[in-house]
Amino acid sequence: MYELGRSKRASHAYSFDDVAIAPARRTRGEDEVDLTWKIDAVSFDVPIVAAPMDSVMSPSTAIEMGRLGGLGVLNLEGLWTRYEDPQPAYELLTQDCDQVTATKRLQEIYAEPVKPELIRDRLAELRQADVPVAGSLSPARTQEFAPILEKAGMDFFVIRGTTVSAEHVGGDNALNLKEFIYNFDTPVLVGGVATYRAALHLMRAGAAGVLVGFGGGTTHTTSAVLGIEVPMASAVADVAEARRDYLEESGGRYAHIIADGATGRSGAIAKAIACGADAVMVGSPLARATEAPGRGWHWGSDSYHPRLPRGQRSFFEQVGTLEEVVLGPSRVPDGTMNLAGALRKSMALTGYTDIKSFQRIDLILH
Amino acid sequence: MYELGRSKRASHAYSFDDVAIAPARRTRGEDEVDLTWKIDAVSFDVPIVAAPMDSVMSPSTAIEMGRLGGLGVLNLEGLWTRYEDPQPAYELLTQDCDQVTATKRLQEIYAEPVKPELIRDRLAELRQADVPVAGSLSPARTQEFAPILEKAGMDFFVIRGTTVSAEHVGGDNALNLKEFIYNFDTPVLVGGVATYRAALHLMRAGAAGVLVGFGGGTTHTTSAVLGIEVPMASAVADVAEARRDYLEESGGRYAHIIADGATGRSGAIAKAIACGADAVMVGSPLARATEAPGRGWHWGSDSYHPRLPRGQRSFFEQVGTLEEVVLGPSRVPDGTMNLAGALRKSMALTGYTDIKSFQRIDLILH
Amino acid sequence: MYELGRSKRASHAYSFDDVAIAPARRTRGEDEVDLTWKIDAVSFDVPIVAAPMDSVMSPSTAIEMGRLGGLGVLNLEGLWTRYEDPQPAYELLTQDCDQVTATKRLQEIYAEPVKPELIRDRLAELRQADVPVAGSLSPARTQEFAPILEKAGMDFFVIRGTTVSAEHVGGDNALNLKEFIYNFDTPVLVGGVATYRAALHLMRAGAAGVLVGFGGGTTHTTSAVLGIEVPMASAVADVAEARRDYLEESGGRYAHIIADGATGRSGAIAKAIACGADAVMVGSPLARATEAPGRGWHWGSDSYHPRLPRGQRSFFEQVGTLEEVVLGPSRVPDGTMNLAGALRKSMALTGYTDIKSFQRIDLILH
Amino acid sequence: MYELGRSKRASHAYSFDDVAIAPARRTRGEDEVDLTWKIDAVSFDVPIVAAPMDSVMSPSTAIEMGRLGGLGVLNLEGLWTRYEDPQPAYELLTQDCDQVTATKRLQEIYAEPVKPELIRDRLAELRQADVPVAGSLSPARTQEFAPILEKAGMDFFVIRGTTVSAEHVGGDNALNLKEFIYNFDTPVLVGGVATYRAALHLMRAGAAGVLVGFGGGTTHTTSAVLGIEVPMASAVADVAEARRDYLEESGGRYAHIIADGATGRSGAIAKAIACGADAVMVGSPLARATEAPGRGWHWGSDSYHPRLPRGQRSFFEQVGTLEEVVLGPSRVPDGTMNLAGALRKSMALTGYTDIKSFQRIDLILH
Repeated sequence: MYELGRSKRASHAYSFDDVAIAPARRTRGEDEVDLTWKIDAVSFDVPIVAAPMDSVMSPSTAIEMGRLGGLGVLNLEGLWTRYEDPQPAYELLTQDCDQVTATKRLQEIYAEPVKPELIRDRLAELRQADVPVAGSLSPARTQEFAPILEKAGMDFFVIRGTTVSAEHVGGDNALNLKEFIYNFDTPVLVGGVATYRAALHLMRAGAAGVLVGFGGGTTHTTSAVLGIEVPMASAVADVAEARRDYLEESGGRYAHIIADGATGRSGAIAKAIACGADAVMVGSPLARATEAPGRGWHWGSDSYHPRLPRGQRSFFEQVGTLEEVVLGPSRVPDGTMNLAGALRKSMALTGYTDIKSFQRIDLILH
Repeated sequence: MYELGRSKRASHAYSFDDVAIAPARRTRGEDEVDLTWKIDAVSFDVPIVAAPMDSVMSPSTAIEMGRLGGLGVLNLEGLWTRYEDPQPAYELLTQDCDQVTATKRLQEIYAEPVKPELIRDRLAELRQADVPVAGSLSPARTQEFAPILEKAGMDFFVIRGTTVSAEHVGGDNALNLKEFIYNFDTPVLVGGVATYRAALHLMRAGAAGVLVGFGGGTTHTTSAVLGIEVPMASAVADVAEARRDYLEESGGRYAHIIADGATGRSGAIAKAIACGADAVMVGSPLARATEAPGRGWHWGSDSYHPRLPRGQRSFFEQVGTLEEVVLGPSRVPDGTMNLAGALRKSMALTGYTDIKSFQRIDLILH
Repeated sequence: MYELGRSKRASHAYSFDDVAIAPARRTRGEDEVDLTWKIDAVSFDVPIVAAPMDSVMSPSTAIEMGRLGGLGVLNLEGLWTRYEDPQPAYELLTQDCDQVTATKRLQEIYAEPVKPELIRDRLAELRQADVPVAGSLSPARTQEFAPILEKAGMDFFVIRGTTVSAEHVGGDNALNLKEFIYNFDTPVLVGGVATYRAALHLMRAGAAGVLVGFGGGTTHTTSAVLGIEVPMASAVADVAEARRDYLEESGGRYAHIIADGATGRSGAIAKAIACGADAVMVGSPLARATEAPGRGWHWGSDSYHPRLPRGQRSFFEQVGTLEEVVLGPSRVPDGTMNLAGALRKSMALTGYTDIKSFQRIDLILH
Repeated sequence: MYELGRSKRASHAYSFDDVAIAPARRTRGEDEVDLTWKIDAVSFDVPIVAAPMDSVMSPSTAIEMGRLGGLGVLNLEGLWTRYEDPQPAYELLTQDCDQVTATKRLQEIYAEPVKPELIRDRLAELRQADVPVAGSLSPARTQEFAPILEKAGMDFFVIRGTTVSAEHVGGDNALNLKEFIYNFDTPVLVGGVATYRAALHLMRAGAAGVLVGFGGGTTHTTSAVLGIEVPMASAVADVAEARRDYLEESGGRYAHIIADGATGRSGAIAKAIACGADAVMVGSPLARATEAPGRGWHWGSDSYHPRLPRGQRSFFEQVGTLEEVVLGPSRVPDGTMNLAGALRKSMALTGYTDIKSFQRIDLILH
């Protein structure tokens, strides 16, 4: 604890940029590394979850993500459930213009109401492909659409907001998370969360996994607008302790940690796991895939809030197919392609062969 | 304390950029958040004070600020009290030109003497609108114009300089602050101040509130010119302890803390209060309002000193009405619109419902 | 140790940029400074090793490097052993183009297989010049080409990879380093290595010297891609302790430390030795020599990996002959010419006359 | 002390940018501030010494500097003592060209030998004006030109090099500083020096004052070329302790500290004195004066070393007369004009009225 001033003390928190993975005394062959991530009844080849952002996830890219061994999550409050045909909306949102105009367009296009029948139809489309099905809602609208979700038969339901707590008090559409999860058949992944205590409460509420961070590291401006910030390395390392404590107090329930924010480079993905994450949720690298519906433009749900937008639309040059982005081969030396291969290499060079043991590696601050 | 060198030790001080608000385990509905700020007999809907800078405050914008629920402060040593018609001066000061020319023009235009009768007339204009009335002077000229002020019937009188102390020794027009406040009917807000001890002395001199910081964070160059700097997070947290100690030693007098500097983004406003401030004084976001007399150009009283200018004129794109800047809705994701809404959201996401309790939130260093 | 988060602690590591050489109370004449570096049976006038990068080392520049008093190392898996005539390849790789195209070309050109007979011929060419002969291979291909190397009669054999350990487990072409070195006549320099423990194991495996760092500081992107980083000042200072401990446990075997990374300015070369290195391996300053085969373009073996490239091709303006770069005179004030003269000056100004004692100088953090 | 790595520890040192002057509880009128600096028999109105750099000091600007109340120092190894008429050299050195060409020209122009008779004549010219006379030489040439200096009747002789020690061993033209000063009538100011111990030795050798730092902060590249760096705040604070210890051990001899480096803004000048300096040596702000012989171009003696240049020629826009730069009024808000006025203001705002007491002010780290 450091003294901020006479009336206040503060602890230091670190971002992924503040830490680095240090090679140890042993190295391994890459072919010995196993990236498998098992959560609930599902096993994934790679511990990578695609963020429910309209710029990267359409029904078809969500399916492709599953085929590549990861998990695609469709935004159930996004363009695909507001518009029967979202292409005209994408057309408008992928034109070059200044940030003020971009924000205005986002606010207008997302003013269109979410249609329950489109939630149903989009999930059915995912269901037909033989991949794990996942969709996301904000906490405020979860209760409203829960009945549709229950009939849809998803593998994972993601509740995702800037900050989601198990103890939300008051407000419209307030969600009693514990009760909701108890009554809901599908495993729930929920976040953002940033601290040991908040994460422990989410775990106790029955979350199968928690999203650590606020997502959209590349695009969000939460710090400038709200003053709220989550240095990710410390947040993940804090929540990892909550996972351990909950495992003990629950007599064996392992709540997964999904790092969701500032994970846009493969190096940061490796660091997230080295800090204790089981998997990562990524956005911007997928925006670089030729199949991305945003055609290189990237935005999150923070960017179209009607009264307080907190995200910028950004552009990324497209570099290859979604498969190349996730599994390689890479053609760019900047950590945005072959995400799985880079994680594998990082583990091999430091002598680890599975995710769980890699979580224990020593890190350095620099 | 760190050792600077063998002969000197120094303590570490932190700016708003060095700290962040960390979400806790509870969240609240935004409609439960109360932003009310009560000082003396007046209650404000939002804890936001407009800085007495000619670029943002004219009589009409000062009145509008009051109508929006905050406090507008007119610079009583500025264009409006030097010129019967300040529009030609504004015309010159809002033309694009290099910094050297801009400084020369500022020095020339502000060489015009302040007219006592204009102080009287401008305050009368504010008085007629049904909003709290406030005006500001520098310490050096307070004594001179005090008689006019007393007759004007203000709600708050602001004494604002780079550094104002309760123990000024020597110099022309030296002000005995304690005596002045004792004899002056209107509550006095006074600063800048940056340390526990200096603030405690101002409180003991009878200040209803102290301005922490030097104002004009966006435009001033005090650090380059004077070597003086006030990392705001530490300054506010230090002075908050002075408020607590003075409350005890005075048997219940609560001196308000107004953070005045580096508060140009809504995120920083939230941090200022999280460090212990009761309210904030803002300048640059208001320069972005379409009603701002500076038309996007922004300058403070530091910038026109005749022998030692210490501020730069800056330009900000105008983004919406003053109401939109203060109360929203926002159309930009950078923390310069919907200042009150952003503060409300920040408090809701961290589970706080009023300013006093939000002052106690834990912060992190990053 | 700092607390990253509740579940993890980390130690702080420092780069060359974080440290500085502090003048002491004594100065020396430059003519009293002796830069001699003795390793195995060979004595070098300057403790500078040219990195085995195709952009700087051809057979002729490797020879010239030896003539200047340093050590040139030829990349035995590079253009000179893949192509009988590498000039067309150099032609393609030294054209201006964007990074994506550059990476694609590098991957294509280095897809050509390495020819054993070319390894033999190139080493023979070096042998004929009367300078120390050194070549390098990656660990994965060392075993395969070992028989050719043994016949070639080198003075030093360099095994160089991103991270090389004495305990590599599994993978194709896995190298048992200890056994290899035991059976191999030529002294082996091996790395990169970054930690005390890993370095100690390499020393115990019989390495005559270890390369500390990952090389190619100017061009590699290991941090962005793998999350792995080696703040060099700390790495060298850590490994220097391994050298001391190994010296004692082996009863007198002195394993040399060659700093290999972030040593592209003469100031950093001085810092590397001040941290404990016996010599440095440099790349980018040599790319600025008019004789450099890369004609100012610079790339390392990281940049052409077929599935996970981790380096960028960079351009440096050519400033003088290789002799001027290494021994001066300098015509640029940026630390990229007269490397030996700058080291000599740095030692003289701080009062040291030989490499071994300069390793003990006090440094400061800033 | 921090652990750099297992074999090495290092202490932390701070630059002027790392520290700030914190206002205290008292303020003063500016007219109460006394900037007088007394050294030996001479009293200066302002504690500002002009650096012996050809870009700012000609005989006429050195004289003007004295008339303004400071001390001008002429470079006795520069253009004015190499050329009877230095104007053609200035013509060449003040043309716009790239850095490589600039360095080449500097090396060529300064290859011209220094003429003893010109040293004599230039000093005589200064002598005729009724101001304190000072000139500088490098340590290597001090012995050679000493006889001329003795006859010239200077008030101060400055020996200035990158690092000057009282215990220089070996080299051509080695200077026995203690003996030299003992036999030399004029008070000697000598540096650069950066540490307590080195400074104490210079004081014991009889220096009337020591120059702390390496000068030419704006232009020199000592860090990139030599790895040597002197974070100025710590250096001055360290040497201030040497002054105190020497005062005691010598029974009352007060050796002056002149901060020489990174003092190019008035804010840094105030910080230098706040760290313990008695006066500052400045270069770049003077290059902005219309009278500066370099016409805005600025270079130091580091920049023309024949084999290892360590400085860049830089350009500064000219802003006013030398008088305006030193004594104001200022027309720019960046700390490069009205240096004395800014120092006066800084002291007044923090409640100090003389240099000696201002040396004891508390600083903060940020």
